Amino acid sequence: METREKFDWERGCVIPFDLFTGKADGIPMIQRRLSDLAGMFSDEAAYEKALEAGDPVVYEYHAIEIPPTDGDLSFGYSVLYPGKVGKEYWFTKGHYHEKLYTAEVYHCLKGHGMLLLEDRRGDWKTLEMKAGDIGYVPKGYAHRSVNISDSEPFVTVFAYRADAGHDYGTIKTKGFRKILLEESGQPMIADNPKGMS
Amino acid sequence: METREKFDWERGCVIPFDLFTGKADGIPMIQRRLSDLAGMFSDEAAYEKALEAGDPVVYEYHAIEIPPTDGDLSFGYSVLYPGKVGKEYWFTKGHYHEKLYTAEVYHCLKGHGMLLLEDRRGDWKTLEMKAGDIGYVPKGYAHRSVNISDSEPFVTVFAYRADAGHDYGTIKTKGFRKILLEESGQPMIADNPKGMS
Repeated sequence: METREKFDWERGCVIPFDLFTGKADGIPMIQRRLSDLAGMFSDEAAYEKALEAGDPVVYEYHAIEIPPTDGDLSFGYSVLYPGKVGKEYWFTKGHYHEKLYTAEVYHCLKGHGMLLLEDRRGDWKTLEMKAGDIGYVPKGYAHRSVNISDSEPFVTVFAYRADAGHDYGTIKTKGFRKILLEESGQPMIADNPKGMS
Repeated sequence: METREKFDWERGCVIPFDLFTGKADGIPMIQRRLSDLAGMFSDEAAYEKALEAGDPVVYEYHAIEIPPTDGDLSFGYSVLYPGKVGKEYWFTKGHYHEKLYTAEVYHCLKGHGMLLLEDRRGDWKTLEMKAGDIGYVPKGYAHRSVNISDSEPFVTVFAYRADAGHDYGTIKTKGFRKILLEESGQPMIADNPKGMS
């Protein structure tokens, strides 16, 4: 049987991921450490203090090279570990698609998280996700994952049009309008005190 | 928190599926019974005999109405139950996309199955999948799921461009070139005896 050939996007292939961790032999994940998120957390003092204690991996994800055409699909796992900087839950950097009007789907395999969405007109929304849930990131919205569990990784599988592209710059410069803080053990949405709008 | 709103493809939404069965309150699955697959199995006598004993659900899947644009994505679960007609494993009808050059991804949550692929030039391929595996159906290929377990449902989550469309007619008329039979307890690829090419 012709099975388990890797990376044949022209004739089809299977990538054998571990269902709950996304690990697969020979398929590296990109790691983002706390130091990679400089300037993005609301509590700068807590961030500096956390970095002094170490530079943990905050999240990791697949960035598999798939032909960037409008008929192909990119996909992979995202694993966001539990943690906080001050009261703010760990998150992914977040991004718009360069091709702004392309959607993305996230399927949660494990954990408890939020997708934080916002668009360029000022709209925003959170999507709470647990295992089994599929979250729909609509066209035109930047999206960030936030892990609101205190113990489990937030594990998702994502898919989007392979030519969508990533625009990290807008978010890195302006931040998201809203942030997610833990207050009395519960996630609370707050305005970003850095005042970017 | 604005969570668990359903069916808002403009501002985002979460659909709360059961991780391993795909069931979700208020979100029906389309069921295909043995009688819906008339003429598609290679052993007609075995098919008629099986139907006399009942008309079981062979597979079910979500067909959620998502705006059919090139920037949106359709997604859902497919659950293909274990069974055979004669030696031939139960399968889904299979289809091309109307927009032929659009890919599809399948993520296996449970079970053991095959994706059977073929294109219009005569190429074919099988992709064997177990839990965790993501199968890539390339642009231009018809695809059918086949359950090669004798006990478990083959459960997958699929995603594709929402404007891809489905062309079932070509397969219904011509069949797939290859079929999957159980021989000595193992799946074996055979030519379709109906001789369609």
